[in-house]
Amino acid sequence: MPFEFKLTRRVEFVETDMAGIMHFSNFFLLMEATESAFFRHLGFSLCPQASSEGMGWPRVHVECDFKHPLYFEDEVEVHLLVDEKRAKSLTYVFVFRKLNQAPALQVARGRVVAVCAARDEPGGKISTVPIPPLIANAIDVAPRDLMESLPPLRT
Amino acid sequence: MPFEFKLTRRVEFVETDMAGIMHFSNFFLLMEATESAFFRHLGFSLCPQASSEGMGWPRVHVECDFKHPLYFEDEVEVHLLVDEKRAKSLTYVFVFRKLNQAPALQVARGRVVAVCAARDEPGGKISTVPIPPLIANAIDVAPRDLMESLPPLRT
Amino acid sequence: MPFEFKLTRRVEFVETDMAGIMHFSNFFLLMEATESAFFRHLGFSLCPQASSEGMGWPRVHVECDFKHPLYFEDEVEVHLLVDEKRAKSLTYVFVFRKLNQAPALQVARGRVVAVCAARDEPGGKISTVPIPPLIANAIDVAPRDLMESLPPLRT
Amino acid sequence: MPFEFKLTRRVEFVETDMAGIMHFSNFFLLMEATESAFFRHLGFSLCPQASSEGMGWPRVHVECDFKHPLYFEDEVEVHLLVDEKRAKSLTYVFVFRKLNQAPALQVARGRVVAVCAARDEPGGKISTVPIPPLIANAIDVAPRDLMESLPPLRT
Repeated sequence: MPFEFKLTRRVEFVETDMAGIMHFSNFFLLMEATESAFFRHLGFSLCPQASSEGMGWPRVHVECDFKHPLYFEDEVEVHLLVDEKRAKSLTYVFVFRKLNQAPALQVARGRVVAVCAARDEPGGKISTVPIPPLIANAIDVAPRDLMESLPPLRT
Repeated sequence: MPFEFKLTRRVEFVETDMAGIMHFSNFFLLMEATESAFFRHLGFSLCPQASSEGMGWPRVHVECDFKHPLYFEDEVEVHLLVDEKRAKSLTYVFVFRKLNQAPALQVARGRVVAVCAARDEPGGKISTVPIPPLIANAIDVAPRDLMESLPPLRT
Repeated sequence: MPFEFKLTRRVEFVETDMAGIMHFSNFFLLMEATESAFFRHLGFSLCPQASSEGMGWPRVHVECDFKHPLYFEDEVEVHLLVDEKRAKSLTYVFVFRKLNQAPALQVARGRVVAVCAARDEPGGKISTVPIPPLIANAIDVAPRDLMESLPPLRT
Repeated sequence: MPFEFKLTRRVEFVETDMAGIMHFSNFFLLMEATESAFFRHLGFSLCPQASSEGMGWPRVHVECDFKHPLYFEDEVEVHLLVDEKRAKSLTYVFVFRKLNQAPALQVARGRVVAVCAARDEPGGKISTVPIPPLIANAIDVAPRDLMESLPPLRT
């Protein structure tokens, strides 16, 4: 059962700032894009259109450590690993590697805790709900030895 | 009856790009922020929360001409003028002036055609609808001689 | 010689707004991403890193007409066509087609006029310059009959 | 000597997503806008234009905890507190309060570690450098009892 997913993206011009590097906020957008693609790959949607469901995954905690900058047109691999699965939340770890140099350089590492939430009625209040079994059963937690073998971001 | 509105903003770091200037896409966000503030000033919302209404103003045409760049921390005035009012649409002209130099420098000019739209039911199809009389009656079209007196962007 | 380029992208969650559709400003980011990829495909960069060059392509005019909305996870094809090539500027037309329905639906059309610019010294003033011959010679203008055969956005 | 700063902003339409709330990534943009305004208030710039300086404050760690959503047109106060001052870095804590309800509701809390960095030459490599004395001497660390008295985000 899947516990990881990889997405590759190229840094866009608009993502750079006057310091000449990718603005840090884009790391969070890359995490979310990877999480979306992971769900899509499993046959789900991070936010289904059908209003009857009204389901989504609001974040309750996000963080990121930055080690090396990314530049315009750099190719970056975002490696999602499921770190924890609870009744109502999923925790992901994200490893960012710059691919256009050899060996690939680990540039950043992120972590996101997302809770499963739904509206009690269309346009209604958002509440935390248990992860639907169909989704919970399709996602596994990454093996502990894999998580522990991730190279440290800083030495 | 109001036919114009002014908003002043400072260029944020994230809005700059590696060329050292404000990325052009932010001019459109400034236009929308000014349009929002214009509606709020009149007691309306560009997109009311109440799902029963489901009203909004999708753009059908937008454009912008750029004459001078804006830099980090520049102060810019966005001057909205209502150029046209139709049964189902409003057309705005936006004049951008850089304030932190004297005399203020006209840096760009934009134009937006927004149509009034609503969903036929919550989560339903979006269709163009007549502007509600309460809103239509609160907004005037800028006098033609004012519009014609706007300084040209290019000479 | 190339006069067109196509890029396919999926609408990201962050690109949606509370109206449930892709915010219009993202059409301009998709245009720029396609322009970047077109340059990269030709062996150039829209904004080379080397500060000695300091070259770029500021926009002097951009516009977009919107016909149909795009939703989260929609697949959109951005079709760039070179509409005009002058000594110091390139004009592109962009046709947006939603791919995840048959036949593909034309949702928007954009136009961008970009001028070739460079700094006279590092950190110096930005001025318009002639397009370097290497680039100008690698890019062709789309045949007029192709441009005229583009289906109208509105009927 | 100043150890805190407050900025008030209104949630813009473009900052919302299809879930109807402000996208979480904007909390980081609000933190940076407040940090910028804090520097400006002290007479400094977070990123001076003059290329000779080439100074900036890249982030090495950022995080945010989210408790309540923000909606379009909500008024939010961002309260910056200097949590730590080291030779080459500043750590900020940010408390987000929604003002348009009484009493003001704490909606999120963030933390940012930024290092002082400069290029060794124009266009050169970015390295960590000691905070210039002029800046270091103008910024104080918030009293510990103030930091400890901040209301918990979660109960």
